[in-house]
Amino acid sequence: MLKEYDCWLQYRKVTAQVNFPKTVFVQKRGEVTDNAAREFAAGIERLLGLKLAVKQIKTPPTNDNAVFLLFDDKEGKNEKLKTEGFKINILQNKILITAADENGLLYGVYRFLSLLANGELKYDLEISESPVSPLRIINHWDNFDGTIERGYAGNSLFYKNGNFNFDIKRIEDYARLLASVGINRISINNVNVRDKAKLLITKEYLSEAAKLAAIFRRFGIRLLLSINFGAPWSLGKLPTSDPLDASVAAWWKERAALIYKYIPDLAGFLVKADSEGEPGPFQYNRTHADGANMLAKAVKPFGGEIIWRCFVYNCQQDWRDKSFDRARASYDHFKPLDGSFDDNVILQIKFGPYDFQVREPVSPLFGALTKTRHIMELQITQEYTGHQIDLCYLPSVWQDILEFDTSHGQNSKIMDLIKPYKEGSSYIEGFAAVVNVGLDNNWTGHTLAQANLYGYGRIIWNPCLTAKEIAKEWSVLSFGKENTEQKAAQIAEDILLKSYRAYEKYNAPFGVCFMVTPNSHYGPNIEGYEFSRWGTYHRADAKEIGIDRTKKGTGYTGQYSPNNESIYEDPAVCPENQLLFFHRLKYDFIMKNGKTLLQNIYDNHFEGYDEAVSMTEEWKSLSKILEKDVYKSVLSRFERQLVNAREWRDQINTYFFRRTGIGDKNGRKIFD
Amino acid sequence: MLKEYDCWLQYRKVTAQVNFPKTVFVQKRGEVTDNAAREFAAGIERLLGLKLAVKQIKTPPTNDNAVFLLFDDKEGKNEKLKTEGFKINILQNKILITAADENGLLYGVYRFLSLLANGELKYDLEISESPVSPLRIINHWDNFDGTIERGYAGNSLFYKNGNFNFDIKRIEDYARLLASVGINRISINNVNVRDKAKLLITKEYLSEAAKLAAIFRRFGIRLLLSINFGAPWSLGKLPTSDPLDASVAAWWKERAALIYKYIPDLAGFLVKADSEGEPGPFQYNRTHADGANMLAKAVKPFGGEIIWRCFVYNCQQDWRDKSFDRARASYDHFKPLDGSFDDNVILQIKFGPYDFQVREPVSPLFGALTKTRHIMELQITQEYTGHQIDLCYLPSVWQDILEFDTSHGQNSKIMDLIKPYKEGSSYIEGFAAVVNVGLDNNWTGHTLAQANLYGYGRIIWNPCLTAKEIAKEWSVLSFGKENTEQKAAQIAEDILLKSYRAYEKYNAPFGVCFMVTPNSHYGPNIEGYEFSRWGTYHRADAKEIGIDRTKKGTGYTGQYSPNNESIYEDPAVCPENQLLFFHRLKYDFIMKNGKTLLQNIYDNHFEGYDEAVSMTEEWKSLSKILEKDVYKSVLSRFERQLVNAREWRDQINTYFFRRTGIGDKNGRKIFD
Repeated sequence: MLKEYDCWLQYRKVTAQVNFPKTVFVQKRGEVTDNAAREFAAGIERLLGLKLAVKQIKTPPTNDNAVFLLFDDKEGKNEKLKTEGFKINILQNKILITAADENGLLYGVYRFLSLLANGELKYDLEISESPVSPLRIINHWDNFDGTIERGYAGNSLFYKNGNFNFDIKRIEDYARLLASVGINRISINNVNVRDKAKLLITKEYLSEAAKLAAIFRRFGIRLLLSINFGAPWSLGKLPTSDPLDASVAAWWKERAALIYKYIPDLAGFLVKADSEGEPGPFQYNRTHADGANMLAKAVKPFGGEIIWRCFVYNCQQDWRDKSFDRARASYDHFKPLDGSFDDNVILQIKFGPYDFQVREPVSPLFGALTKTRHIMELQITQEYTGHQIDLCYLPSVWQDILEFDTSHGQNSKIMDLIKPYKEGSSYIEGFAAVVNVGLDNNWTGHTLAQANLYGYGRIIWNPCLTAKEIAKEWSVLSFGKENTEQKAAQIAEDILLKSYRAYEKYNAPFGVCFMVTPNSHYGPNIEGYEFSRWGTYHRADAKEIGIDRTKKGTGYTGQYSPNNESIYEDPAVCPENQLLFFHRLKYDFIMKNGKTLLQNIYDNHFEGYDEAVSMTEEWKSLSKILEKDVYKSVLSRFERQLVNAREWRDQINTYFFRRTGIGDKNGRKIFD
Repeated sequence: MLKEYDCWLQYRKVTAQVNFPKTVFVQKRGEVTDNAAREFAAGIERLLGLKLAVKQIKTPPTNDNAVFLLFDDKEGKNEKLKTEGFKINILQNKILITAADENGLLYGVYRFLSLLANGELKYDLEISESPVSPLRIINHWDNFDGTIERGYAGNSLFYKNGNFNFDIKRIEDYARLLASVGINRISINNVNVRDKAKLLITKEYLSEAAKLAAIFRRFGIRLLLSINFGAPWSLGKLPTSDPLDASVAAWWKERAALIYKYIPDLAGFLVKADSEGEPGPFQYNRTHADGANMLAKAVKPFGGEIIWRCFVYNCQQDWRDKSFDRARASYDHFKPLDGSFDDNVILQIKFGPYDFQVREPVSPLFGALTKTRHIMELQITQEYTGHQIDLCYLPSVWQDILEFDTSHGQNSKIMDLIKPYKEGSSYIEGFAAVVNVGLDNNWTGHTLAQANLYGYGRIIWNPCLTAKEIAKEWSVLSFGKENTEQKAAQIAEDILLKSYRAYEKYNAPFGVCFMVTPNSHYGPNIEGYEFSRWGTYHRADAKEIGIDRTKKGTGYTGQYSPNNESIYEDPAVCPENQLLFFHRLKYDFIMKNGKTLLQNIYDNHFEGYDEAVSMTEEWKSLSKILEKDVYKSVLSRFERQLVNAREWRDQINTYFFRRTGIGDKNGRKIFD
């Protein structure tokens, strides 16, 4: 029995695999700890039907036959636990969950419950874990009117009709889901801070935000607020928002003091400046360092940080002008500023140079910034990856990113760079991701898209986990492992692992990007962005396609390390899945499999659709096993995916057939 | 001094060209007559500064030295005036305006005032006129929320926030403008009857509609209401809206009785059924005759008529399916029904088979329907013709349509077919047009677009008027004829006359249609509709473009008279401006000027843009002559037009250059 609402925290009834104590001793510390104990007791009651006695203690007693939730924060010891880490020990008459801090304890509790749920407890078990990414952030693009920018799972959990409007129980359930996979920060409003959202930093709205903060706080999650850089002018009625103007700096200091009165542990501000129409320092001929540092000083006294997005590019591009390359923009803007940011500024850099495309290279800023704190931005919500109608399991995408070698020195894979920042090296401090949840009962629209939210938390906690391992974890936690549940879990895992490759195949070919319906970003529109102001062109003609980003072209390849530059420069060694991102090639270019580029485009699009069909068939094999509503809701998504995949296949194939007049070598139907 | 708000009724101060009597005798008849007398006196006061004494009379007195507004409706006399016609006589001591009916008298008054304004009164002048089209209809696509579908001149004059909301003075001014060019019917709500508009036929809303009707009534204009065919179900809560269901017919009869209680002279209903998602008889497997006749019987007792739109086609088309041709749809649906409609049903047929395109052929239904009353639908609002940003003088379009020879028998031009219906011949009873006005102070957004509203009224009153004659009339009435006014009028006339050809040149080439931005319909998007569900494809590939609509293709040409069919069948004689509507041609097809199709596409697009530039320059020559606000408001439209025209030129040229690899013979810049 799968309850969609419960996601991966199904907590089905199980038999305890070890002798289970009836008492929990929890070392007194703070409210996250109190909550950890409550969560433990509630989880055990659902899993084992057992009501535990929870007792607070100051120092660990010597009793046995109990569960102990303890802190071990002695400095300099061998066994010192790392920040937010935990250790689980199962002894004959004692269960120990030990942590360095409150968050660690909470994470230890959730890990323990999931081990129990999966029947993996045993005597002498000892597990020790800590998160690899210090910053594990969720971004909401929720608007105050209740809509969600790029949201595909119903309206906002937080807002309605211009005001906060939330169900406390639902927010608690959401915080639990996030904390169970280790999230420790959440921004609660759209980075485009417009209309009523501008009032978020005023008393009336802050008192409501404080209520949200209180809920998330119990789960070890600190709030971030997206702010509008132009607020001194638009809200404060100052004549300017110039970051070097003393009255502007003073305004923000005062405003920060007000905000921190309501939310004393606020993690800080998230800022989208000079981007897609939002105000920013460029308006006043100031640098982004000027802008970010001024805000950083305002929140510094309160321990706050400024997360400053690097999605800065000219979005009033003329398609006729080939001298401009949008892919260069983030590096061109931010690399020269490396080292000029205050120590409580963190740059938030989208994983690729474009914008969350199905396939694009990793941004050259990673590995290149050595004197600036930064994190990577991902997207869990499926803006370009199928709107939670088409299935697209994103840990497959993220694994590729994590394995990308920046080739700046030794151990320079993205996954190797993730650690707390230390000046002089390129340390990625963590991740932020735009979330995929809304008021839909199953949170994510497509029930299988829950795996993306789960997978995000898991893979940033431990970047060595593979997409396959995470798919297996999620499938078992969600569908169960008893009897027929096992088959469902196996099929879910299998479908998840096929889904990204299928989606990529029927999408824009070989990293050329943006052959997508303008604005909505769902479904094909091959020339949809070709003559627009967004700077994302493929310039296909009758003979060739793609943008030359080599030295002979826009020079984008030069933003990478010499080793990567040489790889990307040469179409013969450039990774084929990004071939058309870096090169302008003739349709008869011969690829590694000996077939032409054109034939490979056809092959992929026929195969991508066929794979969508076969995923659908796999799902149908569960018709007798699964609950009707779950089966049907997912099936209806697959049916819509097939319509979309067919359009992609046929429109892409027809487009290239019309351009070239060359048909499919295997005689498959291409409409003319 | 041009007052934009006053449009062509500037009524600048003039000197009377004849000795002007101080008394008006008006023969008593009804409220339109009373209003005609008021309009006469008010006009004279503005033009001559003269306050007239208006005296009602039962029979004409024998005095001289007066103005007489009289009726002459004697049957069988030589001089019998036609319906809505008038006669103006200027004698030495007497001015006579004589009419057959009240509307005729009002029209005579406006004609007299315009003669006076233009200094054209003289002794012994005798003018006699009557409208060629019996039905002269304005359609509003105004929504109850205040927006206007395809409106480009501000919000609705009639509605706001889900209710009627109008300024009586403004409505009177609007009614005056319409009556002054002979409009006698107005539909007041969008043909897509959705949301609150469904309540228009309920008491609460009818009482408001009645107030509007009262204003228009004084100006000889009768209201039409757009109704929703599904109302018995959606409003009446009946289980069906099946036109052959007795309860449905009864519901409409009862509803009609209610409606006519509020608006006793209602002209009838306007119906968009089975079209683009609107309900209709097809839902119940009934014909459109079943649907229209049922409604016709409901309004018949009250003298009402049903105007039934023929814009019926499958808008869920699969682009892969070449067997379907949307251009065929209206004829295929309605020709077989010819003769099966009640005598108070009037079909409203869009002028072309597609949808108000910049250039498309005239619908084959005209001349082919001989047993069904029908009118032609035009669009004054510039949906596809530049949104009142780009200047596009539409009488040029309409003149082409009126001169089209249907070749069904003798005297078979569209302009020859316009007359009151008589069974057995194809008589077009008039016109309806979607209007271009809104709450903007100048009514039409672009001040020069006032000429389109004026021109519509004039050309359907007298289809023999040329676009040039109308442009001259409008320009002089608007800009004046004294001193520098004359130059402004001449330039306005000149620009108007160039505008359509320029717009056509930079638009989709040679009648291929629909290379326009989806939904908005402003600006180029060459493949914007290519893979959509709307059935409007051009299927351009590397060698050729267009749809073959000949016998060998979709057979659309066979819907025309044999003579026209033979013209359209052959690309060598097919009118070149519609060449790509009828034919699929190679880019190297040689056109009449000896150049290839491709080169002609390039030529037109370079020329179209250049012509837009030269119109702008012409306008700029008025900078010192015109009032600043008028000059600037029009100039800012031209500046926006240049941006648009440049995008059209470059996107179209680049598109074809990329497809073919063949550049411009004259070496002009085409972006690759």
